[in-house]
Amino acid sequence: MLREDISRLTIQRMVLYHSVLKLMQEEGITVCISKELGRRTGISPHLIRKDLAYFGGFGTKGVGYETDYLFRRIEEILGYDTSWNTVLVGLDMPTVVPIMCYPRLWPEAVKIAAIIDLGKKNQGMAVHNLGLTIESIENIKDIICSRKITIGILAVPPSHAQKTANQLIRAGIKGIVNFSSFPIFAPQDIAITQVNMTSLFSQLTFDLKHVATNDSCS
Amino acid sequence: MLREDISRLTIQRMVLYHSVLKLMQEEGITVCISKELGRRTGISPHLIRKDLAYFGGFGTKGVGYETDYLFRRIEEILGYDTSWNTVLVGLDMPTVVPIMCYPRLWPEAVKIAAIIDLGKKNQGMAVHNLGLTIESIENIKDIICSRKITIGILAVPPSHAQKTANQLIRAGIKGIVNFSSFPIFAPQDIAITQVNMTSLFSQLTFDLKHVATNDSCS
Repeated sequence: MLREDISRLTIQRMVLYHSVLKLMQEEGITVCISKELGRRTGISPHLIRKDLAYFGGFGTKGVGYETDYLFRRIEEILGYDTSWNTVLVGLDMPTVVPIMCYPRLWPEAVKIAAIIDLGKKNQGMAVHNLGLTIESIENIKDIICSRKITIGILAVPPSHAQKTANQLIRAGIKGIVNFSSFPIFAPQDIAITQVNMTSLFSQLTFDLKHVATNDSCS
Repeated sequence: MLREDISRLTIQRMVLYHSVLKLMQEEGITVCISKELGRRTGISPHLIRKDLAYFGGFGTKGVGYETDYLFRRIEEILGYDTSWNTVLVGLDMPTVVPIMCYPRLWPEAVKIAAIIDLGKKNQGMAVHNLGLTIESIENIKDIICSRKITIGILAVPPSHAQKTANQLIRAGIKGIVNFSSFPIFAPQDIAITQVNMTSLFSQLTFDLKHVATNDSCS
């Protein structure tokens, strides 16, 4: 089982290599060396070679890596070679589609296959650019099974986070991206990623409150 | 200058205390003890007392903290007692408003005061639920100064991230939340928070690809 062996940081670096390789493909670069990957990512070539060697080593010494091949292999490793259907769950969301659906900001392999609103007033509304209708959590089991959904995106207030997570897990979800500002708890076999937007913004507002002065407009 | 002394983790915990205190206020709890804060956040009461003491110690020994007062003090510390105007910058965004505007997921003090699209086709379109019109980056300096904007939210593809960040900084922005999957570089006095959505999702797709089996629907 790979899961335990690979650090979160290794995966984050693989994501960076993936982004850089995509740009290199677009630029028509067919062979890349770790030095160039290093220059573009800010990661040392030594660490890059170590990371890639861990997954089998795809390069030829002194020649480098074939861009297309390395890109495809990293897609496989990160799980981007399959489609991942997700369900987005919110409470009284504005009936507009979130930036989370803005495809340039997340892996293309991740699709929104259902949107659930815990509040009644949005249910039944159409979300045109995704071709979806907002649904009720009551049908969660059917929704997950019929659309082969494995990931839940939790965008509910803290007071509803754990209860909703439990509902998703009982219905068969395997992973949760938790955007609420409270940590959620789940059985060990459920993969959880916490994304605390409030906390991320607070890093800035704290810094700005305590050090910044806005003088460039005066 | 506080900035250097306070760890990111302390701020993250302050955000948690803030969320919990808000819930307690809603429940009508007027006095709270560190043990109860600990029970609800999963953080040890000892560490909670230490964190709060760092900012001046707001409690009375054996009595606890006054919920309202502690809540307001943490708002001040995190910078939530002022409004923070932000500009959201994307490229060919769907003309719908992102989840980043979904107020329950981020601090109420943070407002979207302008939306810029680097692509021409969305410019001039109305974003009704924010009462804004999508604008061009050409007017960035005017936009920032006239609306007292201090924070830029960068939601552009990696290939445009650094260039756009530079434009925002030249125009006088003081902090950037970077949602693109590439790190950006900025002068030391600019506060930066990186939020790599691709990386966050990859943690899950990696885990799910390598360990999970979806059997609850069969």
